[in-house]
Amino acid sequence: MNIRLTAVLMIAAGSMTHFATAAETQPAAREVPARTLPVPTTVSPEIQRLIAVPLSPTWNFHPTSAAQWKDMVAKSAAGITAQVPGLLAKFNVKREQMQIAGVRVYLMTPNSLAARNRDRLLVHIHGGGYVQFPGEAGNTEAIMMAGFAHAKVLSIDYRMPPDFPYPAALDDVIAVWRELIKTHDPKKMAIFGTSTGGGMTLAVVLRAKAEHLPLPAATAPGTPWSDLTKTGDSYFANEMVDNVLVGYEGFLSDAAKLYANGHDLKDPFLSPVYGDFQGFPPTILTSGTRDLFLSNTVRVHRKLREAGVEADLNVYEGQSHAQYVFDADAPETKEVFTEIARFFDAHLAK
Amino acid sequence: MNIRLTAVLMIAAGSMTHFATAAETQPAAREVPARTLPVPTTVSPEIQRLIAVPLSPTWNFHPTSAAQWKDMVAKSAAGITAQVPGLLAKFNVKREQMQIAGVRVYLMTPNSLAARNRDRLLVHIHGGGYVQFPGEAGNTEAIMMAGFAHAKVLSIDYRMPPDFPYPAALDDVIAVWRELIKTHDPKKMAIFGTSTGGGMTLAVVLRAKAEHLPLPAATAPGTPWSDLTKTGDSYFANEMVDNVLVGYEGFLSDAAKLYANGHDLKDPFLSPVYGDFQGFPPTILTSGTRDLFLSNTVRVHRKLREAGVEADLNVYEGQSHAQYVFDADAPETKEVFTEIARFFDAHLAK
Repeated sequence: MNIRLTAVLMIAAGSMTHFATAAETQPAAREVPARTLPVPTTVSPEIQRLIAVPLSPTWNFHPTSAAQWKDMVAKSAAGITAQVPGLLAKFNVKREQMQIAGVRVYLMTPNSLAARNRDRLLVHIHGGGYVQFPGEAGNTEAIMMAGFAHAKVLSIDYRMPPDFPYPAALDDVIAVWRELIKTHDPKKMAIFGTSTGGGMTLAVVLRAKAEHLPLPAATAPGTPWSDLTKTGDSYFANEMVDNVLVGYEGFLSDAAKLYANGHDLKDPFLSPVYGDFQGFPPTILTSGTRDLFLSNTVRVHRKLREAGVEADLNVYEGQSHAQYVFDADAPETKEVFTEIARFFDAHLAK
Repeated sequence: MNIRLTAVLMIAAGSMTHFATAAETQPAAREVPARTLPVPTTVSPEIQRLIAVPLSPTWNFHPTSAAQWKDMVAKSAAGITAQVPGLLAKFNVKREQMQIAGVRVYLMTPNSLAARNRDRLLVHIHGGGYVQFPGEAGNTEAIMMAGFAHAKVLSIDYRMPPDFPYPAALDDVIAVWRELIKTHDPKKMAIFGTSTGGGMTLAVVLRAKAEHLPLPAATAPGTPWSDLTKTGDSYFANEMVDNVLVGYEGFLSDAAKLYANGHDLKDPFLSPVYGDFQGFPPTILTSGTRDLFLSNTVRVHRKLREAGVEADLNVYEGQSHAQYVFDADAPETKEVFTEIARFFDAHLAK
């Protein structure tokens, strides 16, 4: 079997002429022409509205000082925080703020708490590029999970740069985990989060492994930022296609450097795709077909499967990065959280 | 929860300014600028070579007569058929040609046949847009599966247009299935195939359901042509990104019309994504991040899950349509077939 069959098959797939020599050239970049991308008809009206949103005109704004970072973070946090009471009401979730190991956490308890979930706890790590969504602004996904899964969710308000770069965020989550396992059976706990929260979910388990701590019974990294470098095909293929993140050379590259603070971006605690997934708990991954992090997701999925880990992948039609946490009323949002809840239910002890 | 949170979250993901009104505009097409797409470093050298192949210069050649179709089919078939003996030798597979229900089939028996697979049979439906890969040219994937899965594979050489349009192909596969279930326990059989073979795998099960026939114990539709119309986001988002199929308005649209021969393209027996998946057997789906059929794959995955069917999705980094059957030496090829073999092993009776 060799390149000749390759070339023949590729031709066979859609053309008549033979270009076998092309397959023997050096790997080369390819020009993709400009295109018009319609809003798909194969998603709900709610997701259609999200897909129709133009690219952020300032996705590649580059803060040049700690003050500019904080200003950006404060503005986005204020907008989201204002929506949190509505979300709590919609999902009928009670929220308690407390400290665990000196770290601020929020415990979400849904009115619909299921009997089978009374002793279970879902630990949530919020997203935001390691810099955004402090305080209540990090609550939204945790509230949705509490409501959709009928389970208690503990959301960790970890420290972030510019004041607290790596490893503060990871230190905080590990400190909370060390406390939790004193009073909770880890077999009854899961860890989940989206984007940076997904990357941290993976990194926290890698670090728990390294520190010989008990691992959670399951994890759910949603479109995890598993590679902080611009490595992985969808960083390129979905550039300007994903209307949420848009491209690497904006917020993402700046946030990666701000967080890493000089550490190697390919350290598995920063870019967990480079970690060793042997012994990982069962894991459910989520992404979208337009997601800039589609490769960040499928690369982790493949590594988990290669390590013999039970790993479940769900890719949602037409969605850009993390759009399944953007509209609590979209049927696809319910579908994502229901899939994860079902996976947790199958893997957590009662 | 409403569009306001949506807009805030999208801004929060990467920008500072607010454009809430944008979310309330009508769904609109978006212009994606021209881009340079490098060959990813995150795949094997073998897959890098496939990704580096330029777009077929004749992917949108339009045959205008039966003779032109047959000429195209003959040329691609000749190229592949010449490679078949090498594949049989590489995988140490014995091939027998026979007739079942008047349909030509090829039985592949690997020298490495596993004891647990002695009574099992994997039924293969080849791809090729319902028009290509007649005779031995349809053997390649069946040989690889026999070798990688250490199992017997029966590949069906169904009739195709221009001489035999729909429903001939499906009639042939169903006729073979009706015969097979007389002598083989359906719980010990699976059905699989790639591209058109994936679409037909789904359509055959839908038809077996409709005819109240026993279903196979598992199916493996690889990047299935589940929608013969240009419906689904990746037909647009991966246009000119997928270097195998390239786009819908070439071979694909012509082949769809040639096969359907006036039938409604959205009939579930032609576009199985529109079918009812209740009661479907456990199914493993395969696609790639650049695949023009990524949406064809994930839409079926979601429908299966919504119907409560066990459905496993694997998406491979950087791959365009069906590239996992192009190079038997690529580690990713082995990975794909091994995943499917493991899934079959878990679901087929011994």
